[in-house]
Amino acid sequence: MGSRVRVVVAGTVACCAAALVLAYPMHDRTAHAAVSAAAESGAPYTPSYTKDGDLVPPVQYREWIYLTTGLDMSYTPKSNPDMHMFDNVFVNPEAYRSFLQTGTWPDKTVMVLEGRGAASKGSINTTGHFQSGGQMGLEIHVKDESRFPGKWAFFDVQSETKATLFPQTANCYSCHAEHAAVDTTFVQFYPTLLPIAQKKGTLSAAYTKELAAQPGK
Amino acid sequence: MGSRVRVVVAGTVACCAAALVLAYPMHDRTAHAAVSAAAESGAPYTPSYTKDGDLVPPVQYREWIYLTTGLDMSYTPKSNPDMHMFDNVFVNPEAYRSFLQTGTWPDKTVMVLEGRGAASKGSINTTGHFQSGGQMGLEIHVKDESRFPGKWAFFDVQSETKATLFPQTANCYSCHAEHAAVDTTFVQFYPTLLPIAQKKGTLSAAYTKELAAQPGK
Repeated sequence: MGSRVRVVVAGTVACCAAALVLAYPMHDRTAHAAVSAAAESGAPYTPSYTKDGDLVPPVQYREWIYLTTGLDMSYTPKSNPDMHMFDNVFVNPEAYRSFLQTGTWPDKTVMVLEGRGAASKGSINTTGHFQSGGQMGLEIHVKDESRFPGKWAFFDVQSETKATLFPQTANCYSCHAEHAAVDTTFVQFYPTLLPIAQKKGTLSAAYTKELAAQPGK
Repeated sequence: MGSRVRVVVAGTVACCAAALVLAYPMHDRTAHAAVSAAAESGAPYTPSYTKDGDLVPPVQYREWIYLTTGLDMSYTPKSNPDMHMFDNVFVNPEAYRSFLQTGTWPDKTVMVLEGRGAASKGSINTTGHFQSGGQMGLEIHVKDESRFPGKWAFFDVQSETKATLFPQTANCYSCHAEHAAVDTTFVQFYPTLLPIAQKKGTLSAAYTKELAAQPGK
């Protein structure tokens, strides 16, 4: 376990948190097993940083609110038909409860995108895919309004104590800004939250425009 | 939304809760939207029943602990290559915390298998699948030792207030008994729990035998 998850788009490397994984495993590295350990949750998680600006990852994210899963999602053609990966998205419970009320995310929202291996043959299963094995990367999307220029930032988890910041020039920032349905997050892929955003009127102008331009609209 | 989820195996209809959905939508029926509403969770859910023996479904299961997701899982060849469905599995938090300590499930464990539509083209996604739309069926697996002959029972959610019991002769019972990794549940498809069961030595004899019989073992 522990194959690296990165996103290669047009020759550049970009993160893509929050439901669109677009991932190619590049190489093995230290497993994130400790991060996925199903820890007893204690007090609510609040983003905290090291003196170097790294984020301290939440160890209890598997006990947070589940939002969605994708399989092999990509905005580019699939390069390796034999490689499959799930991506699961979680959000901290406090932010989720706020979203239910408002249709958007409060300050200190933390979303986790977890890659998981996808197996097909195993036990009684012969068709389709199931999740198997350890993590294949973790990325974190944090809203910390007073800390980041665009309010949000992306981090790549390196170990159970360290997640490094993606620079503001990384493609993930512009892609989320230009295409995400709510407050730079891909709520269009979160089936229980999209109706809430629609009802609350919090869909982004960019996403609304994208919807209007779809064939048949 | 609301296509019925059923499992057709060798001409019979069987449920299949807990991660192996094996599902074919048979016909539309009343949507379970209210059941999937992201309700505020209150006190811990305890299984309760109507005087007719129906289970009152948990409305807050989307706020429970997420275990896994499959896409198009089946133990039979896929009959309709154009139909895709995800299945998400959740368990009540109290049972999850007990599993972390013991490697098996306590009395009053409640697991929910939720079907969700799988879309491919949408927004910036062009490859793979993402979850979209409403539920495509809900099934519940309940451990209630003093109530059911085999300690566990399966229920099919009909509405937000009613889930009907699958009879003990349904295939789901024998399939789970014969193939599931831990206490009639398919922990082999729950990637964060399988290592715990292995460590605690709670794998079923049937699953251990199945593993030993795999090629290369």
